[in-house]
Amino acid sequence: MKSYNVAILGATGAVGTRLIDQLAHSTVPVKSLKLLASSRSAGKTIDFKGEPITIEEATPEAFDGVDLVLASAGGGVSKRLLPEAVKRGAVCVDNTSAFRMDPTVPLVVPEVNADQLKNHHGIIANPNCSTIQMVVALKPVLDKFGLKQIVVSTYQAASGAGQSALNEFFQQAQDYLNGKEMQSTILPTGSDKEHYPLAFNLLPQIDVFEDDGYTHEEWKMIHETKKIMLNDMDAEGLKVTATCVRVPVPISHGESVYFEVADDKATTDDIKAAIAAGEGVVLQDDPDHQVYPQPLTAEGKRETFVGRIRPDRENSGAFHLWVVSDNLLKGAAWNTVEIAERLVADDLVRVPE
Amino acid sequence: MKSYNVAILGATGAVGTRLIDQLAHSTVPVKSLKLLASSRSAGKTIDFKGEPITIEEATPEAFDGVDLVLASAGGGVSKRLLPEAVKRGAVCVDNTSAFRMDPTVPLVVPEVNADQLKNHHGIIANPNCSTIQMVVALKPVLDKFGLKQIVVSTYQAASGAGQSALNEFFQQAQDYLNGKEMQSTILPTGSDKEHYPLAFNLLPQIDVFEDDGYTHEEWKMIHETKKIMLNDMDAEGLKVTATCVRVPVPISHGESVYFEVADDKATTDDIKAAIAAGEGVVLQDDPDHQVYPQPLTAEGKRETFVGRIRPDRENSGAFHLWVVSDNLLKGAAWNTVEIAERLVADDLVRVPE
Repeated sequence: MKSYNVAILGATGAVGTRLIDQLAHSTVPVKSLKLLASSRSAGKTIDFKGEPITIEEATPEAFDGVDLVLASAGGGVSKRLLPEAVKRGAVCVDNTSAFRMDPTVPLVVPEVNADQLKNHHGIIANPNCSTIQMVVALKPVLDKFGLKQIVVSTYQAASGAGQSALNEFFQQAQDYLNGKEMQSTILPTGSDKEHYPLAFNLLPQIDVFEDDGYTHEEWKMIHETKKIMLNDMDAEGLKVTATCVRVPVPISHGESVYFEVADDKATTDDIKAAIAAGEGVVLQDDPDHQVYPQPLTAEGKRETFVGRIRPDRENSGAFHLWVVSDNLLKGAAWNTVEIAERLVADDLVRVPE
Repeated sequence: MKSYNVAILGATGAVGTRLIDQLAHSTVPVKSLKLLASSRSAGKTIDFKGEPITIEEATPEAFDGVDLVLASAGGGVSKRLLPEAVKRGAVCVDNTSAFRMDPTVPLVVPEVNADQLKNHHGIIANPNCSTIQMVVALKPVLDKFGLKQIVVSTYQAASGAGQSALNEFFQQAQDYLNGKEMQSTILPTGSDKEHYPLAFNLLPQIDVFEDDGYTHEEWKMIHETKKIMLNDMDAEGLKVTATCVRVPVPISHGESVYFEVADDKATTDDIKAAIAAGEGVVLQDDPDHQVYPQPLTAEGKRETFVGRIRPDRENSGAFHLWVVSDNLLKGAAWNTVEIAERLVADDLVRVPE
C-alpha cells in the first residue's frame, strides 16, 4: 500500500494540534510526518501516535520530499509557502482563506463536492468553519428539493479566532467572575483596531468590515457557500446572506438558518428525512424530549448536528433549522484530514503536470 | 399635583428590584409604595429613595387603597391577584404573559402603541423582553416604509429566565473554569423536564415547546409583534418568524433581524435616518470605527441600541440590523414604569366603570 510523507504547517495552533490528532485517527497512510511552525516553536516536540516529533521551522526547503501538506498557519504563511511546496511536488490542503476564491482552486467539503478534488493543481482549499457546517446540513436539501434562499445568523465560538483569542476569552471570564476589569487585545479580531471583551458579551463582528457594511466573515459565508454548492462564487441561482456574531462559547459554532426550497411541496418530514440520511450529519431533533444540538455536546465530535427543523408558518416552501458543529474539527482539522483521506482514496496525492 | 399609592408585586426578583429603582427615577408621583412578595420574603426590607420599606405578603387585601400596581411575580400570581387588585380600584401594569393575548387587554410599548392605553379595563400587559426591543427598533421603519416580513434570531441573556437562573448560570461558569462538573436544575426553563448548562454553551430552547416545533418564546415574539404593531395577534399583513436561543450572557438580549419593507425604493441611508430619529432608540452604527451594540455596553441603560444596518445583497427592499437592549430594563422594568408614566401623564390611572 502506498504511504505518504506528510507535513503539517502551523502545528502548534488551535487547529494545528487537532490536525495532528485527526491525522493520527485517519485512514491516511503516513510514511513520515513533519511538523512545521514559526522559528519560535522550532525545537519543541509534539507526540504523533505516541512518538515525539521535533517541530521544524517552516521554510521552502522544509517541503523537500513531502507528498502532502496540511496547512493552518494563517493566510500570509500559506500564500508564501504553499506555492513553494507545490513546486517541490507536494499536494496542499489549506485551511486558510488564502486561495479559497481562486477559481482554479477547488474549495471542498467532501460530503458536498468531493468531485471537485480531481480538478486540483496542487492546492485544495478548506472552507471557512461557519460555511462548512451549514453546507453539510443543507446539501441533502439542495439535492432533493433545490434551494432558493438562505438567511443565516451565526453564534460563533471564541476558538474560531485562534488559540490566543481562546486564551484571552477564558482570562476575561475569570476576571469578570473575580470582579476584575476584563482586558482585550485580540477579540473581536487581531487585525482590527478596537478590541472588546467577549466573555459575558456578544460581538457582532468577525473579521474586518467590508465597504458595504458586511464583515469579511459574512462575505466568506456568502461566496464560499455559492462556490461549494453551485461551483460559482457569484452564482445567482441561490440567494445567501449572513450575519455573523461571536458568542462567549469556547468551541463549536451554532447557526440559526432560514431557508427556502424550490420544491414547495416539500414537507417538514421530507426535510427531516433528507437531512437524517445526509452524509456526516446527525439529526438531534426531538422537541418532546428537549433534544437539540448544543456546543458542549458537539465539542470533540466530527459530525454536524442538526435540530429544531420546522416549517416557516407564513411562507410556503420555507423552513428553519439549528446546526452546531465543532468549529475546530469539521470546521477545520477534520474537514482538512477528510479531504486528505479522499485524495488518498482517489489517488490524487500528486501535482498534475 | 395628583400622586398615587403604588404597589410592586414580585418585589424581590430580578425584574422586581429593577422596578423599584426605575420607579424611584421616574416621573410617577408616588404617595406611598407597597412592596409585595411571597410569604417567604415578607418582613424583609428594601430601600426606596433611601427609605426602608417592609415587604408584605401578596394577598388580595394587600391591594386595598392601591391606585397602581406594577406586577412581575410570574403568570400564575398575576392571573390570581391582578383581578383582585382591579376589583379594588387599582390599575395594573403586568410584566407577565398572563394577559398579553387577551384581546381586551392592551399590550403596550409606549414608543410604538401608547394610543392603546386609553382602552384599558384595569390591566395593561407589558410584552415579552425579546419582542419589545425589536418593535422599538422597527417601529420607525414600519411608519415610514411599511414592513412585509421579519425573520429574527435572538441571542437572549440568562437573566431573562429570572434571578435564580442567573445565579445558576454564574455558578456554572465558575465551576467550568475550576474544572468542576456544571450543575443544572433550572435552565433552559424551570417548567420543563431536562436541564442543561448554559455557561460556555448555547441552548436553542426558551420556554417550553409548542406542538408545531416552535418554542413558546418564539410563539410570543410572533404574536406579540403582530398585536403591538398591527393591533391583531394574527395579522396577516406582516409576516413574522423567530428562532430564540439562550446565550451565556448575564444581561441584555441581542437580535439579528432580517426585514423586508413595503416601499422598495427605501435606501439603507433612509432606514438608518428613520431609526436614528426613532423614539427610545440609539443608533450605534459605524463599522469604520467598529461601533455596534453590545450587551456589556447596553446593560443598565433604558434605550434600545441598533447597529449593523445594511441592505440585503440579493433581495431589493430587504435589510439587516442588530439590536441590543437591557432585557431587565427596556425589556421589563423600564417599559413597565414607562407605561406607568404615560398612564399618569394621560390621567388614565383609574379603572373604568
